[in-house]
Amino acid sequence: MAETTKRDNTEKNLVAMGRKIIDEVKRMENPSIDIPIRSLSNVTYDQKTKSLVLGDKFSKRHYFNVAHAKPFMQTLLVAAATNGLVKDRLHTSLRDLFYMLKRTIPNSNENTFDDQSESDAMIVDLEVTLDTLREKLNLNADIRGRVVGNVVIEDREDEINWGKLGSGGWAIPSNVEDVQIKKVKADYILVIEKNAAFERLHEDKFWQNQNCILVTTQGQAARGTRRLIQRLSTEHKLPVYIFTDADSYGWYIYSVIKFGSIGLAHVSDRLGTPNAKFIGLTLSDIEEFGLQDFTIKAEEVDLKRAQEMLNYEWFKAPEWQAELKLMLKKKYKAELEALSGKGLKFVTEKYLPKKIKSKDFLP
Amino acid sequence: MAETTKRDNTEKNLVAMGRKIIDEVKRMENPSIDIPIRSLSNVTYDQKTKSLVLGDKFSKRHYFNVAHAKPFMQTLLVAAATNGLVKDRLHTSLRDLFYMLKRTIPNSNENTFDDQSESDAMIVDLEVTLDTLREKLNLNADIRGRVVGNVVIEDREDEINWGKLGSGGWAIPSNVEDVQIKKVKADYILVIEKNAAFERLHEDKFWQNQNCILVTTQGQAARGTRRLIQRLSTEHKLPVYIFTDADSYGWYIYSVIKFGSIGLAHVSDRLGTPNAKFIGLTLSDIEEFGLQDFTIKAEEVDLKRAQEMLNYEWFKAPEWQAELKLMLKKKYKAELEALSGKGLKFVTEKYLPKKIKSKDFLP
Repeated sequence: MAETTKRDNTEKNLVAMGRKIIDEVKRMENPSIDIPIRSLSNVTYDQKTKSLVLGDKFSKRHYFNVAHAKPFMQTLLVAAATNGLVKDRLHTSLRDLFYMLKRTIPNSNENTFDDQSESDAMIVDLEVTLDTLREKLNLNADIRGRVVGNVVIEDREDEINWGKLGSGGWAIPSNVEDVQIKKVKADYILVIEKNAAFERLHEDKFWQNQNCILVTTQGQAARGTRRLIQRLSTEHKLPVYIFTDADSYGWYIYSVIKFGSIGLAHVSDRLGTPNAKFIGLTLSDIEEFGLQDFTIKAEEVDLKRAQEMLNYEWFKAPEWQAELKLMLKKKYKAELEALSGKGLKFVTEKYLPKKIKSKDFLP
Repeated sequence: MAETTKRDNTEKNLVAMGRKIIDEVKRMENPSIDIPIRSLSNVTYDQKTKSLVLGDKFSKRHYFNVAHAKPFMQTLLVAAATNGLVKDRLHTSLRDLFYMLKRTIPNSNENTFDDQSESDAMIVDLEVTLDTLREKLNLNADIRGRVVGNVVIEDREDEINWGKLGSGGWAIPSNVEDVQIKKVKADYILVIEKNAAFERLHEDKFWQNQNCILVTTQGQAARGTRRLIQRLSTEHKLPVYIFTDADSYGWYIYSVIKFGSIGLAHVSDRLGTPNAKFIGLTLSDIEEFGLQDFTIKAEEVDLKRAQEMLNYEWFKAPEWQAELKLMLKKKYKAELEALSGKGLKFVTEKYLPKKIKSKDFLP
């Protein structure tokens, strides 16, 4: 497939981008870069792939243009720096890259970059222009997330068994592109919003007894964790169940893992896991499992978000519409820990097995 | 040693506390609990052990006392619940415990606990009364932190080699009381504030080349991480070097790892690492390594904190006084990433080896 080939050739494409500009200079043309537009106007929800995708609108960034000259320079600085990283096989963070490139242009008061947000924007431009992941440009994102389960991987020549890591687990790195998944013995992946709930399930040997992989995102899932979930799920055909608080932040975590985010629609197909399902906590669980005493009053942000989500094309499934309307009606929310009101092992022995057995998921 | 014995007997002490109250009830006395006072008035800095320690003042909490009755009940609820956890060998989080105990007292409008802050306070009361760690009451704190290095541990019957975990590392659990440290081959422990800097050093094989253990705290060190640093350092006589941003938050991270915190002075000797030293980033590094272009304007909070710290008895060393005064004079601060302004490998190949070789630390 041509597309796969293009993607596997980040380094080649980066060099080609530079050569094109050199050629334009040699031909005395105005050098330019074509950059796909990333705003909502160029993002659509693809029913078939169930993910947010980028359209084909793009803008031209020219060197000889007062408004474009600085971003043009910035794009090339970032491109040259990442080309160096890839060549030297070094990885670094977005913040490091900003410091690497920040300087005052000689004989001027002009800085290459004043603020990290400027270099970050150029990185996304580059990512989308080259149709790649920033991880393939050796730029690492935030680091969060842990995993345990019956899985053997190879990473930097170490063979690692996620089932033999005691109470801790494997600390998911920011970049999992070079991780090889060697052996998987699991029926599904359970992704949990909170570390504490992850520890509880791990202590109860939930993954051994249920034959699953446990991942904790520690809040919003970092890119490394999203990519790892996606790779495990697609490479080994495993269903993914997301387990978060019953509130707007929990839904957001779910939505980003499943559909991707509007700002990063160009990488949805590599970071998103469209087959992911929402296992809970749902507002209807509260009545079904008698958790009414453990609810919390919904905040403005939860109600506002529920109202907005009612209109999102990617939340039109009747189950989600019912869930969102239930919050607007009941005006309460609940945390994962509410399940502990029923006893500490309730989540392990009753709640999750029941939901999984009866396939009681939101799509 | 009587003290060690007492500490090793958290379960016995918990039961003894309950029995004492039952005896008082039987003797028709007003049941009471002696709770050491935790406010600044009862906290001192011990020059000899270099840590914050709790004095011997305590207050009595009585059952028959309008102001004490509710906290008395809350203390016993928490004590009974943790006794159950210890007996059942289950661990849980502070938030879970709150949900486990939250209910409305029959025939009243009174809740056992309205807010988690109430149950948290009772847990600290219990911790200090029993002279134990909440971890020994099977209550787990926040979870953060990763570690790599030439160390073999045993945890839940798994033997784990921290040197064979690829690019990720071992995810430090919230509770490391049951972790056995089997084999350590390292000259020192380098504790890093930021995950990204940890990944950079890990990629550069810093721990292999320098024969050290790398720990990242991911911001303020969680209790599990502080306890692990303390155990590695004391059980294996390893020096500890702390590597943070040159700002008030970095100093705070250092201070808590080394001295403990005022609010938790009763556990300083089990969570604090008095021999820890501050390797950087220091404000004098900025001139020494030519990082002036990569500084940031200090914020009000940094300057205010520097002013406060000048008066802390535990920052009276002349090196620290000079450091704090330098910030007040220069009015700038710097991040670890500033070192990348000198090239991506500068920190691994130049900065850290030079500081360690010349023992250029703040005490």
